[in-house]
Amino acid sequence: MRNPFKVVVVTGVPGVGKTTVLEHLARIASRKGLKLKIVNFGDYMLETALKEGLVKSRDELRRLPLRRQLNLQALAASRIVEDSVGELGENDFLIVDTHALVRTPAGYLPGLPFNVLEKLKPDMIVVVEAEPGVVVERQARDRSRYRGDIGGVDGVRRLMEQARSAAIASATRYASTVLVVDNREGAPEEAALKLLEALEGL
Amino acid sequence: MRNPFKVVVVTGVPGVGKTTVLEHLARIASRKGLKLKIVNFGDYMLETALKEGLVKSRDELRRLPLRRQLNLQALAASRIVEDSVGELGENDFLIVDTHALVRTPAGYLPGLPFNVLEKLKPDMIVVVEAEPGVVVERQARDRSRYRGDIGGVDGVRRLMEQARSAAIASATRYASTVLVVDNREGAPEEAALKLLEALEGL
Amino acid sequence: MRNPFKVVVVTGVPGVGKTTVLEHLARIASRKGLKLKIVNFGDYMLETALKEGLVKSRDELRRLPLRRQLNLQALAASRIVEDSVGELGENDFLIVDTHALVRTPAGYLPGLPFNVLEKLKPDMIVVVEAEPGVVVERQARDRSRYRGDIGGVDGVRRLMEQARSAAIASATRYASTVLVVDNREGAPEEAALKLLEALEGL
Repeated sequence: MRNPFKVVVVTGVPGVGKTTVLEHLARIASRKGLKLKIVNFGDYMLETALKEGLVKSRDELRRLPLRRQLNLQALAASRIVEDSVGELGENDFLIVDTHALVRTPAGYLPGLPFNVLEKLKPDMIVVVEAEPGVVVERQARDRSRYRGDIGGVDGVRRLMEQARSAAIASATRYASTVLVVDNREGAPEEAALKLLEALEGL
Repeated sequence: MRNPFKVVVVTGVPGVGKTTVLEHLARIASRKGLKLKIVNFGDYMLETALKEGLVKSRDELRRLPLRRQLNLQALAASRIVEDSVGELGENDFLIVDTHALVRTPAGYLPGLPFNVLEKLKPDMIVVVEAEPGVVVERQARDRSRYRGDIGGVDGVRRLMEQARSAAIASATRYASTVLVVDNREGAPEEAALKLLEALEGL
Repeated sequence: MRNPFKVVVVTGVPGVGKTTVLEHLARIASRKGLKLKIVNFGDYMLETALKEGLVKSRDELRRLPLRRQLNLQALAASRIVEDSVGELGENDFLIVDTHALVRTPAGYLPGLPFNVLEKLKPDMIVVVEAEPGVVVERQARDRSRYRGDIGGVDGVRRLMEQARSAAIASATRYASTVLVVDNREGAPEEAALKLLEALEGL
């Protein structure tokens, strides 16, 4: 019921500071001699689509009909695992950077539906959270990266609650542990340390 | 992993105004040349039970042992899909009017358990919401339709949260998108328009 | 899709008063001639581990690698059901005392993941809740029983919300009803009566 290495899925709504936390995690883990491989789910989807000749750019990927995107989502999950077999041992960690809910014109799409979970079989699902007000500020500062209106502080709070529900629901499939990590403003290393400690508990 | 037409499940706690939103949706969609077929899950269950000779009325259906009701629930889901094959094309929509959680004497029953999802394979699960206070008033106005005490404003708020959790959990099974639609008092057409826009994003 | 008897899973965060409610339930049920068998999931896991010669004590069990604990979790679920076949009839109740989320060093582990649900196929999942402040006080009073810091009133409230989400997600697998029971301070018999009434609705 598990992969030949430990799989940790890290989720968080846009602007929560997930990338920064993962950068700190990579640094601390390497200092401690822990082997991690961090992959980005969205990048894998794009790469897969490019290789299959389905699209020529990230924008084209987003404009694919949703049912086609879902096929790519499942395919990307397979590739992520396949590419790590042989490379990672039973004490190593595959860290998958993704979302519990992905914004689409048709509503929020689960980032960890069953056909994705079937491949990843996560040992742990991490939910990175932050103060909704801080998330809104970050999104406002960097409009190029965070496109689309998320609905202010209340909208962010609501989305975070729904994303947490989605992460918990996905965790029941393969008995993944759920770790909610608070990414306090100005203290991403603290969040990374908490995450590392939990990895060591696996 | 999908049906030969688009399936959209519309949920909402009693009194949230779901029926009115769906009436507006039907009107707007027909104006825009979008083909929708709207079916009511509860009506299908009753019809199925009548055809099978299991009950003679809706009241009898409610008094069936829960395990028997569950069989009917699964059977109704099959019929809903079968009856639309041939009738709906790949760009048409089957809209299923139901609940994410159904009140029973033994607690709240999921309206979208896995054996129902297996048949419907929804592209989208919609959660229609409204201000808890407005929902309580609507239920008070029409006691013939909304039977049973739902626990005041706090009870409605709690049920709405749980129903949303249930909808999200069901969405992870087949990667259905989740759309939360706010049905503001006096503006059901606005909610219907938001829903239509999301349908076009599928 | 069900066991040859009724299965009711009772969950609740540590300190919520679940054990007391179940004691009252046992007493009331026996007065009413209802046959219940109450088993504790954790005890079954330990027993299974002892029998298999995997551990010599409860502490050793907690220190097993998580993947090994998961195997035991699934095995315990099988045993719980097997041990009741023959003993319980179709109108009798198997009550399983467990948690929706279990604290581990690697985060919160779902107590009702799919491989456990596959065995239990619960007719009902009960979530016993109480005022977060009361839960914190109870935990403080009995440090020997409730180990580890749960994060104060806010931590308990958050855990209770997540546990409820997990229970609802698990309920969608086999269409289990969800019953949230409020265990008001000083009134566990009231909670037991509400639970009994729901059992009779199954």
